[in-house]
Amino acid sequence: MKPLIDAPLLPGGFEFSAAACGLKKSGLDLGLIVSKTPAAAACVFTTNLVKAAPILVSEAHLRHSASTMRAIIVNSGNANCATGPVGLAASRRTAALVARTFSCKPEQILVCSTGVIGLPLRVERILRAVPSLAASRSTRPESFAQFTRAIMTTDTRPKFAAASCRIGGKRVRLLGCAKGAGMIHPRMATMLAFVTTDATASVAVLRRALGEVVGKTFNAITVDGDTSTNDTLALLANGASAAPEIRVGNTDYRKFLGALESVCHSLALQIVADGEGAHRVVEIEVRGAPSDGAADDVARTIANSPLVKTALAGGDPNWGRLLAAAGRSGVRFNPDRVEVRMAGILMCRNGRAHLFDERTAHRKLLATRVPIVVNLRAGNGTARMWTCDFTGDYVRINASYRS
Amino acid sequence: MKPLIDAPLLPGGFEFSAAACGLKKSGLDLGLIVSKTPAAAACVFTTNLVKAAPILVSEAHLRHSASTMRAIIVNSGNANCATGPVGLAASRRTAALVARTFSCKPEQILVCSTGVIGLPLRVERILRAVPSLAASRSTRPESFAQFTRAIMTTDTRPKFAAASCRIGGKRVRLLGCAKGAGMIHPRMATMLAFVTTDATASVAVLRRALGEVVGKTFNAITVDGDTSTNDTLALLANGASAAPEIRVGNTDYRKFLGALESVCHSLALQIVADGEGAHRVVEIEVRGAPSDGAADDVARTIANSPLVKTALAGGDPNWGRLLAAAGRSGVRFNPDRVEVRMAGILMCRNGRAHLFDERTAHRKLLATRVPIVVNLRAGNGTARMWTCDFTGDYVRINASYRS
Repeated sequence: MKPLIDAPLLPGGFEFSAAACGLKKSGLDLGLIVSKTPAAAACVFTTNLVKAAPILVSEAHLRHSASTMRAIIVNSGNANCATGPVGLAASRRTAALVARTFSCKPEQILVCSTGVIGLPLRVERILRAVPSLAASRSTRPESFAQFTRAIMTTDTRPKFAAASCRIGGKRVRLLGCAKGAGMIHPRMATMLAFVTTDATASVAVLRRALGEVVGKTFNAITVDGDTSTNDTLALLANGASAAPEIRVGNTDYRKFLGALESVCHSLALQIVADGEGAHRVVEIEVRGAPSDGAADDVARTIANSPLVKTALAGGDPNWGRLLAAAGRSGVRFNPDRVEVRMAGILMCRNGRAHLFDERTAHRKLLATRVPIVVNLRAGNGTARMWTCDFTGDYVRINASYRS
Repeated sequence: MKPLIDAPLLPGGFEFSAAACGLKKSGLDLGLIVSKTPAAAACVFTTNLVKAAPILVSEAHLRHSASTMRAIIVNSGNANCATGPVGLAASRRTAALVARTFSCKPEQILVCSTGVIGLPLRVERILRAVPSLAASRSTRPESFAQFTRAIMTTDTRPKFAAASCRIGGKRVRLLGCAKGAGMIHPRMATMLAFVTTDATASVAVLRRALGEVVGKTFNAITVDGDTSTNDTLALLANGASAAPEIRVGNTDYRKFLGALESVCHSLALQIVADGEGAHRVVEIEVRGAPSDGAADDVARTIANSPLVKTALAGGDPNWGRLLAAAGRSGVRFNPDRVEVRMAGILMCRNGRAHLFDERTAHRKLLATRVPIVVNLRAGNGTARMWTCDFTGDYVRINASYRS
């Protein structure tokens, strides 16, 4: 496997590995991230009322030892959700075995799962694979690349991003990876995403930073409006850079926040671009709303409209559907003032058709990246969302996901 | 064209006709319903903030002369929405010309349009066709059948239903028809639906009856969660049966309500069954919710989940997606108590998998009608929604709707 990330981009003190333990019919389905020293951790979990067993276990572990996390173990192929006490026991046994391997407490281990909901997890396959998984870990880019593949389900390609900044004369590196292609909907941390950094920062600072970044990155994307039961975004900082500790409010914090946002933004957009069956990423910008919240409501309604998303699949300049979606968002505005631009072309002015060249529009709408701007001209509220087009391939992928 | 409804089922005093005026590339695209005598009318219009010109005009006409309506003129092929003052003038001119033909006031005419949003309506084509449209009207079933076809857009078949009841020794007949296959979402009167009856009833009684019926029929279906800008449900009663006037609360009212509900229920389910690209109608029943409203929230979230609807397209017994959709509905319940049945088969008990035969389940899920029951076991609230599966054909139809 070709290395995907140059070695100098990897944060110090983190090791990765992957294995094929047999949960998937074939291929890598188990991944491990280890911090050589205890790391501070902050996580965002799904807002779905139905939470998978690994989420419940990881939440508890985080409450116990957020400042001394040692490892994250992730399986793909089975979500271990709606599996009852047996599922909880499976996640706990996994954490316990990993902890024993690294001579730490089970509470210092995070557990993540992704895949089908409701099937019993064959945890013995995971447990059997843990010793060799742990033994094969390394700080090499190849190991990271394998990890990014081991967490994939319907993803067609691995997703990763790196950034760095200088803090107190030391280079601090951030490395993130994510999986997710369906059941993607904002208002939670979308699917599985892991960001490791060798920065030195407390749990409180990491939480604050994640909170500032997640709203405009992972929570501003949607593939299908379906919120997963297993979503997890984890940020681990182990201080291996020997850089001074980052504190909220100073310049270092701003630098770190910028680097973190660039990693999260890149991962979020990679998820949308790889949305099940997707051909293009669509950026929906709503301006002139009564408030930012109202702009967000309009942007979300447009971003999740099947009619908008199928028109985008065909490169159809059907701006009327944007207007109709805005109209059912619950936000009050005067339809006769609305302006709509698709792919930079003004198509609707004062709520009605503005003459444009259909053929040029069609061509531009077939690009891999399409910007849409809806200006309600009803205030100063703005919001931005990213979505993808809705194709026949999405249907094909999801009509027989379990088989 | 074969008659679709037996002549004795047609309410007295209503005439129908249809024409091809050239708004569509080919086929019937203009329809007319005429009541020989002034009829009482009640309508439900779209709740979309963006309302098409004909909606605005019809709303005004109804305020003016709800008890003396004479005709409804409907065009397909163009929604006359987001067309500004020119669009409003087009709807008004249409009403005025029809009124002149029948020597009544423009306010006694309802105007409806359905089709693409945002394209200018070629109203001169409608105006040119009105004289022959009016001249060709008749009380024959063949004319009604043509009308049901003239209002179709992406519908693959006409939709109609009839019912009758005895009131004061007289037979009262109800005849309904509807169009709609996409941009279908509850919480409004879905798409275009017209119900004529020769019952004698005041506007107030008709409004009351519509209000009682619409929630559990047209507002309990969804195809794609997109609310149209043109939705209209109109009920016209002309008293031609010479039956005594129906008053709220008595037995006659109950009988009339039953007949009206059966017509609306049938039309609503025909719309779902003909949902764009749909192969099956799915009835989602939610029980045991904290309240009826909460049950409705859960049912709606499930009914609009792309992951649920694509799984249904493939006949995949993916009950985990039902649980995940319920979990993001915003309703509080204990996931560990939930019970799920698909096509009569218990698949989930106490929030986890219940053993079932996959092959039997797959076969049963490929039926044209699939019942789903989700019991939250958290109270006594219930709700029922009808939706359809989400297929590759939906995407194909909507990826190039304008071309």
